[in-house]
Amino acid sequence: MFYFRVVESVGENVEEVKEGDTVIPTFMADCGDCADCRSKKSNLCSKLPFGPKPWMPRNDTTRFTDLNGEPLYHFLFVSSFSEYTVVDVAHVVKIDPAIPPNRACLLSCGVSTGVGAAWRTANVEAGSTVAIFGLGSVGLAVAEGARLCGATRIIGVDLNPEKFEIGQRFGVTEFVDSSSCGDKSVSQVINEMTGGGADYCFESVGLSSLVQEAYASCRKGWGKTIVLGVEPGAQLNFSSVELLHSGKTITGSLFGGIKAKSDIPTLLKRYEDKDTLQVACPHLQS
Amino acid sequence: MFYFRVVESVGENVEEVKEGDTVIPTFMADCGDCADCRSKKSNLCSKLPFGPKPWMPRNDTTRFTDLNGEPLYHFLFVSSFSEYTVVDVAHVVKIDPAIPPNRACLLSCGVSTGVGAAWRTANVEAGSTVAIFGLGSVGLAVAEGARLCGATRIIGVDLNPEKFEIGQRFGVTEFVDSSSCGDKSVSQVINEMTGGGADYCFESVGLSSLVQEAYASCRKGWGKTIVLGVEPGAQLNFSSVELLHSGKTITGSLFGGIKAKSDIPTLLKRYEDKDTLQVACPHLQS
Repeated sequence: MFYFRVVESVGENVEEVKEGDTVIPTFMADCGDCADCRSKKSNLCSKLPFGPKPWMPRNDTTRFTDLNGEPLYHFLFVSSFSEYTVVDVAHVVKIDPAIPPNRACLLSCGVSTGVGAAWRTANVEAGSTVAIFGLGSVGLAVAEGARLCGATRIIGVDLNPEKFEIGQRFGVTEFVDSSSCGDKSVSQVINEMTGGGADYCFESVGLSSLVQEAYASCRKGWGKTIVLGVEPGAQLNFSSVELLHSGKTITGSLFGGIKAKSDIPTLLKRYEDKDTLQVACPHLQS
Repeated sequence: MFYFRVVESVGENVEEVKEGDTVIPTFMADCGDCADCRSKKSNLCSKLPFGPKPWMPRNDTTRFTDLNGEPLYHFLFVSSFSEYTVVDVAHVVKIDPAIPPNRACLLSCGVSTGVGAAWRTANVEAGSTVAIFGLGSVGLAVAEGARLCGATRIIGVDLNPEKFEIGQRFGVTEFVDSSSCGDKSVSQVINEMTGGGADYCFESVGLSSLVQEAYASCRKGWGKTIVLGVEPGAQLNFSSVELLHSGKTITGSLFGGIKAKSDIPTLLKRYEDKDTLQVACPHLQS
């Protein structure tokens, strides 16, 4: 979604990057100054908060106009589908220009979201069991993050059985074809496979019904449901009795809990060190 | 709810307690053998799980009958309102007989639930801000637990303004009278008081609408809502967009996450050491 960029020029108060620097734009800001950016516990910048469109740079003033002088908004704050764009410095991460652009760009959105959800939001424990609902690019990146964290069992759930072969390249060890569960719900199948539920369940589709299945697939006592998807306008419903009696946890993970300016360089360093080639270029992993 | 007991006799395989020992019964079992009891992360015994009534001892066989020989169930597994009872050894905690019974008994249910929710479930960080919805005995015990964990601001919410004076004896530092918020919701008031929400919000009433207010009173990015109450039959509803965008966490806390056989002795030791008199006998604190 977001493309690799070379800085053409900078504003007068910008010191972090200069002309010619290689950067990737990120839809989540990291201003470095606010309480959230200074805290290790949050990646939700307060100074330039993520929210519904229109997405405008700092001070709510667009940098683009059409031929008639009417404002053009900035897609997800960065407008990275245009050849040239104007981006707030809080929305770019400077990177090593030696990293291939078609790899680096993957960390500006989907791969960071998935890897981060396992690594930063869930902090998956080594030896644990993970279930991932939806093996799109985000779900596959969750598998990669869970594998990097040392998860022993990584159960992928998808309607498309071909995803199992792809998923195995990212760490998926078992597969549930949700269209072939017969009379059972997916959560029943996962509860049976795991003897009571997975330690972590990730919803990476964006369906409220699937969040509930993910929650029902979690182990009582310590199970965590991490929600990466969104269904605008929908409500997520949980039984009051079940929430109390199960001791399970539900949490949302926007951009995988990744703090752009510190965590993306960490992931790229691992790519450069070749120990986790698949983090930054998952489609190339053999 | 649960009374102090002296062991009158034990079954043939019971080694943990003997005749004459002082014990307190707990509605939550701690068998010591199952995956949950062996894990530090769960207090939800799998061998003798808590669930809906009828509450029967091990093997679903009652130890009581009425005059006609019909089975009498065991109230919350322990039937502690009777003069004599028969209790599974997994449901008793042996305690120092020197501890006054009218103090020790408080740890068998409500006080452990509240203190544990702050201490074990939330693991409240020193210096943080806490909001407690409902200052009954459980809510007051949450305040005590939060104070012991080093919370700096402890905001009590109740319909009864007299609770503020009582609450202050347990660590409550500020009070919101939820019947006098005018046009504002309680969550709006708490968001204003805290500049964006409390770090931890505890629901200790048992109303689904209040769980939502607690959730709305939490700080984005790292706020945790801990649900101690229950509204049977009710659903808790959360916006899909809000859950993803806020990064907040929701979790249930049954018996405060307390593991009866290890955590209750820890709390009683603090009582004996006099450093936390109020933990075990909150109504006596000056």
